[in-house]
Amino acid sequence: MKEFNVGLLGFGTIGAGVIRVFQNNAEVMEQRLGARLTLKRVADLDITTDRGVKVDAGVLTTDAMQVLTDPEIDVVIELIGGYEPARSFVLKAIEQGKHVVTANKALLAKHGEEILSAAAAKGVDVMFEASVGGGIPVLSAIKENLCANNFRCIFGILNGTCNYILTRMTNEGADFASVLKDAQAKGYAEADPTFDVEGVDTAHKLAILVSLCFGTRIDLENISIEGISKITPLDIQFAKEFGYKIKLLAIGKRENGQVEARVHPTMIPVNYPLADVDGVFNAVRLVGDFVGPVMLYGQGAGMDATASAVMGDVMAISRNQLAGGGRRTPAMGYLPEAMVKLPVKPMRDIVSQYYLRFTALDKPGVVAKISGILGRYGIGIASMIQPERKQREAVPIVIMTHEATEAVINDALAEIDQLDVVREPSHFIRIESEME
Amino acid sequence: MKEFNVGLLGFGTIGAGVIRVFQNNAEVMEQRLGARLTLKRVADLDITTDRGVKVDAGVLTTDAMQVLTDPEIDVVIELIGGYEPARSFVLKAIEQGKHVVTANKALLAKHGEEILSAAAAKGVDVMFEASVGGGIPVLSAIKENLCANNFRCIFGILNGTCNYILTRMTNEGADFASVLKDAQAKGYAEADPTFDVEGVDTAHKLAILVSLCFGTRIDLENISIEGISKITPLDIQFAKEFGYKIKLLAIGKRENGQVEARVHPTMIPVNYPLADVDGVFNAVRLVGDFVGPVMLYGQGAGMDATASAVMGDVMAISRNQLAGGGRRTPAMGYLPEAMVKLPVKPMRDIVSQYYLRFTALDKPGVVAKISGILGRYGIGIASMIQPERKQREAVPIVIMTHEATEAVINDALAEIDQLDVVREPSHFIRIESEME
Repeated sequence: MKEFNVGLLGFGTIGAGVIRVFQNNAEVMEQRLGARLTLKRVADLDITTDRGVKVDAGVLTTDAMQVLTDPEIDVVIELIGGYEPARSFVLKAIEQGKHVVTANKALLAKHGEEILSAAAAKGVDVMFEASVGGGIPVLSAIKENLCANNFRCIFGILNGTCNYILTRMTNEGADFASVLKDAQAKGYAEADPTFDVEGVDTAHKLAILVSLCFGTRIDLENISIEGISKITPLDIQFAKEFGYKIKLLAIGKRENGQVEARVHPTMIPVNYPLADVDGVFNAVRLVGDFVGPVMLYGQGAGMDATASAVMGDVMAISRNQLAGGGRRTPAMGYLPEAMVKLPVKPMRDIVSQYYLRFTALDKPGVVAKISGILGRYGIGIASMIQPERKQREAVPIVIMTHEATEAVINDALAEIDQLDVVREPSHFIRIESEME
Repeated sequence: MKEFNVGLLGFGTIGAGVIRVFQNNAEVMEQRLGARLTLKRVADLDITTDRGVKVDAGVLTTDAMQVLTDPEIDVVIELIGGYEPARSFVLKAIEQGKHVVTANKALLAKHGEEILSAAAAKGVDVMFEASVGGGIPVLSAIKENLCANNFRCIFGILNGTCNYILTRMTNEGADFASVLKDAQAKGYAEADPTFDVEGVDTAHKLAILVSLCFGTRIDLENISIEGISKITPLDIQFAKEFGYKIKLLAIGKRENGQVEARVHPTMIPVNYPLADVDGVFNAVRLVGDFVGPVMLYGQGAGMDATASAVMGDVMAISRNQLAGGGRRTPAMGYLPEAMVKLPVKPMRDIVSQYYLRFTALDKPGVVAKISGILGRYGIGIASMIQPERKQREAVPIVIMTHEATEAVINDALAEIDQLDVVREPSHFIRIESEME
């Protein structure tokens, strides 16, 4: 029986998950592949910490080169994370003619072109299903099954930490800071949570989805990013009253030769399937011109789910080799020469419905003043509530608008914030209630 | 540029959808494939009816042999449906060395082994993503990305007609017969709806999913099938009161060397993502040992969504050829020689929670009698309601049970139905509230 040798760089949490797949599921992989997958070598600077899996001493090494230069190793799995030495190791593996599987979205977002060009020159496969949505087979769905579609839009809940925090804020009425603290204690959030809660991780993943769906290269700095740290229990409460949930959404759209690419807290109707994606789960809703809406849901992180995606890629590479040819599907879904660089629509041009929250004195005429300004800017009001009465004190006034451009919303809010009855800067959250 | 020629058998609704993909999305397919796909010939007995798409007269033919024996045609798409002549045409295409794409689950359920063996002998690919879940990329997800998992269970909403009817019954409180009649008028249900509403179509699809997930062959007659025609507005109303929705679920499980394969109306908690799959949408929830739960959602039927899946398969076959080798992934997910035939667990051995509805006289001691019998059979009661009071008349009594085997439930209900206070045969619906 044909055998493929695999080398693993990085014996952390996901690395341990990958080792467990080799140990537990060798039989089913062989029955599905018709070849044997062998984990030949595992490299990590720390090979003494107990990760809950037993690895033969002969397999472990502290020297990555023992993986990268072993001529018997066919596939290298990179699970180190970060930019360096991950980048150098991946390039070295490619140079040595090895196929590469990685879950490293930061590496792909920053050095993707360099890595994919090197792989093309050398004729090896680079796969990265685990980099977006963890165990959810979303990249393959786009590149393979749905590839006869022109995609119209992408809506993703792509960061488990944010979704866990928002879910608990929603269920418990708790505030961001206290839930974050508890999430950190439970291991659902990093000690420095910025990368997750400020939406950067979600943006890295959106960049990959936008490229795969729309065939366009996109720079991270062209993605508008807003995290969840400013969401208050009050906003969540009002959302509920209007029939919405707040989720951190990655949104990608293509229309008239432009793309939208943005990450921000978003209100979505409670009866939408995406609204029920709670806790650490992730989901992606894609809309293609023929398939219509498709939603893929599952665990976006965690050692086992991520290991499932990594090993799916290892199996795909092995199948390519068995069938007689690799590089079967372009890494970014389109041939490199067909990729374009579409302009990214500035945020001020995007069109959305908005949730507006004002903090204004409770006295006659205030609502008329605010709605008068909105009216002058041509912003239609879908509904309005002022739930509290506290004469001559500041109370929240919430207005749900019809569609408007963000430029107009910004201008109207700036003018409203000048009113002497308005006591705090006004606040808005975008609403997505179409998703088609 | 390399070109692949495609022949289409069957110019019905889905056929027209496929033609539209060729007409509208030639560019994106070329950019993703690096080759040109050409629809060389379309065969149908009726080539005069207007299907809303324009096809060159030279492409249309009434003679299927002009597709099947044209040496320039690489891939044949079979969209005739049914057993014959679909089976003969598919076998002929294979004999002529052509790859085949089909959406015909009935054909696969009945003649799958014959067709796949012929394809193996001839070295061609047979793909059928559109046969289950329409546009949802579920078969590929199992065969490709999730293939390092041992699957534990499958839960599927796989028939749009049933889901449409149940959704309207739920939203409107209407009864089965009137919604069915309206669904027929609107074209969402066939004139003879038996195949859909009695669960046979769902069972065909479950048979394919069980084979792909568990690596076991399963005969249709070993699948327990119960449709939705006996579901009443009363059951739907009670389900709602207990926090459940009723869906026609396809359920597959593997445990201890046995499989479960059954299709029946099922109560699922309203806050589960599957509960929000409404109208003609389909969804599949799969649970793998590493990936955990994954849900895939989309349009399970319709000309465009199905055409998307068909063309995804055509692209996959073309990519195999461009990369230098077909037959990359086993058609049933496992190598044929690794497929087994696991015993199917008899229904009396399945374990579930149950919704029990009794129709009994409203008089003191009735609930005690019923619950006494349940208690003697060791059936735990989770909750009970008797919402109406109509002294000395028959009223519904509903009991939600803890887990019990179906054998015990059947025996207990038989005994309860002997009580003189019980006025109609008792009725049960299975509950799935774990799905892991």
